[in-house]
Amino acid sequence: MNKTPTGKLYLMPNTLDFGVPGAEVDLQQVLPLHAIQIAARLGHWVAENAKTTRAFLKRVDAVQALAQPLQSLQIVELPRPGKGGGSSKTPASPSPTDAWGALLAPTLAGHDLGLISEAGLPAIADPGAQLVAAAHAQGVEVVPLSGPSSLLLALAASGLNGQSFAFVGYLPVEGPARMTRIRELEVLSQKAQQTQLMIETPYRNEALLQALLQGLRPTTRLSVSCGLSLTQGWTHSATVAQWRTQPRALPDKVPAVFALLAP
Amino acid sequence: MNKTPTGKLYLMPNTLDFGVPGAEVDLQQVLPLHAIQIAARLGHWVAENAKTTRAFLKRVDAVQALAQPLQSLQIVELPRPGKGGGSSKTPASPSPTDAWGALLAPTLAGHDLGLISEAGLPAIADPGAQLVAAAHAQGVEVVPLSGPSSLLLALAASGLNGQSFAFVGYLPVEGPARMTRIRELEVLSQKAQQTQLMIETPYRNEALLQALLQGLRPTTRLSVSCGLSLTQGWTHSATVAQWRTQPRALPDKVPAVFALLAP
Repeated sequence: MNKTPTGKLYLMPNTLDFGVPGAEVDLQQVLPLHAIQIAARLGHWVAENAKTTRAFLKRVDAVQALAQPLQSLQIVELPRPGKGGGSSKTPASPSPTDAWGALLAPTLAGHDLGLISEAGLPAIADPGAQLVAAAHAQGVEVVPLSGPSSLLLALAASGLNGQSFAFVGYLPVEGPARMTRIRELEVLSQKAQQTQLMIETPYRNEALLQALLQGLRPTTRLSVSCGLSLTQGWTHSATVAQWRTQPRALPDKVPAVFALLAP
Repeated sequence: MNKTPTGKLYLMPNTLDFGVPGAEVDLQQVLPLHAIQIAARLGHWVAENAKTTRAFLKRVDAVQALAQPLQSLQIVELPRPGKGGGSSKTPASPSPTDAWGALLAPTLAGHDLGLISEAGLPAIADPGAQLVAAAHAQGVEVVPLSGPSSLLLALAASGLNGQSFAFVGYLPVEGPARMTRIRELEVLSQKAQQTQLMIETPYRNEALLQALLQGLRPTTRLSVSCGLSLTQGWTHSATVAQWRTQPRALPDKVPAVFALLAP
C-alpha cells in the first residue's frame, strides 16, 4: 500500500496574453483573488514552460507576495509529446513509477502542487490531462481553480448555441483535407445543432478564415473571436454570406477562436 | 439607418453556488476583480432572474460599492422559453423591434448593459445566446468577462481528453431513451476520442450515475464533478469497472457535471 497523498493538485489558470506583443493585462483583469493567493503560496509546480511560469509568478508577486523566493520554488516541466510519456492518450493506469506519477511526488510528501500552462486553463486545449489522470489514479485530490478559457469566452460571445457545443482543436493544414474537415464539421453541426469550436496557430488565422468562407454554406453562422480578455479583443459573428460581403482581416499574432453553427 | 449603438453588452459571470444550501462563497473566490468592478458600475441588466441578480449585486456591493442604489438599477428578465421570443433557436435576423432587440435599447442610448444568468457564464448551458446574437445583428459590441464555468472546471479536473470535447446538455429522462443516448455518446466518444460532457438536475444525479454505470463499457473512463468551486466540491474520475467496485453516492442538491471518454 502506498502512503495516502496529503498534498492537493491545484489546476491554476493563466492569463490569455501569452505571446501577444504588448498585450500584458493586469492579473486581476481575469484571475480571481483566490487563485492569485493560492499561486502565491505554492512551492511546487508542474508547468508547460518553466520560464513563462516564472514570469507568471512575478506578476502574482505584485498582487500577493510569494510565500518563498521565486528562486527557491520547484518548477518541473511536463514531458513533451513524443519524448516519452507525453503522448496525447490518457494512460490506462498511471503508476507512481512512470513519468507522470513521479511528477506527483511532492503531494506524497504533503506539499500542494500547482499545474499551469502558458495561457488559460491547464489540460484544456493544452497539456496536462495525463498528470490529472495520474493524480486520480494515485488518490491525489484535484482542485480546479476558476479562470479564463478563450474557448468559453468565445462561445459565450458568439451568440451561437451554448446548450450543445464541441471543441475539435486544430483543422488539417493541407488544403483538400482541411476542406473535407470543414464540410464534415458543418454537417455535424447541422445534424446535432451543435456549435463547433476550433483554433489555429495565429499566423494561419487568415488562411483558416478564407477556407471557412469558401467551404461553408452561406446560411451557416460563423463567429471569430480574437484576443478575448485583452484590450483589443473582439468578436465578430455573422452568417457566411454576411462575412463574404463584409470581409474582415484577422491579425497574425493574436490567438483566435473560430465557431460555426449550421442552421 | 439606425444610430450606431455606443453602449456595450457585457457577459457577466456569476458564482456557482446558486441553489446549493449553505454554500455561499466569497465573490473573490471565483470572480476577477475586474468583473466585480464592471458589475458595480452597470446601471442596466438583462437577467435570467431579477431576484437572484439583486442578490448577486448585493454581494458585489460588499467588495466594490455600487455606482448607484440597487433600487434604481434597471433589471429586465430574459423572455422565458415558450412564452414568445424564447425558443432555443438562434434567430436568423433579430431586429430592433423584436423581443431581443428591445432588450438592447439601453445600448442605443449609450449605456453599457450586463447579461447575467443564475450561475456561471451566461449563454453557455444557460439562456442568453439569442440576446448576444441580437447584439451582433445590431452592431452592439459584445464583451465576455472571465469567470467560472462548471463545465470547464469539470473537464480540467477529469483528466480526460481536453483537446477534443463536447457538451451535450441533458440526457433523456425516460429509461430506454436514456440508455440509447448513453451508448450513442460512448460510440461518438470512442470514434472521435472526444470527451462527452453532460449535466443533470441535481435530484436525478444518482439515477444518471446508475444509468451510466449500467450502460457504459467497463473500460470507459467516467468522471463526476460535484459542486466545483464550493467548499465541499470534488471530482472522482475512474474507469466504469472501478466505479462499479467502489460505489460513491451523489448528493441530490448539488449540481454535478458528468464526463466520459471511451478508449
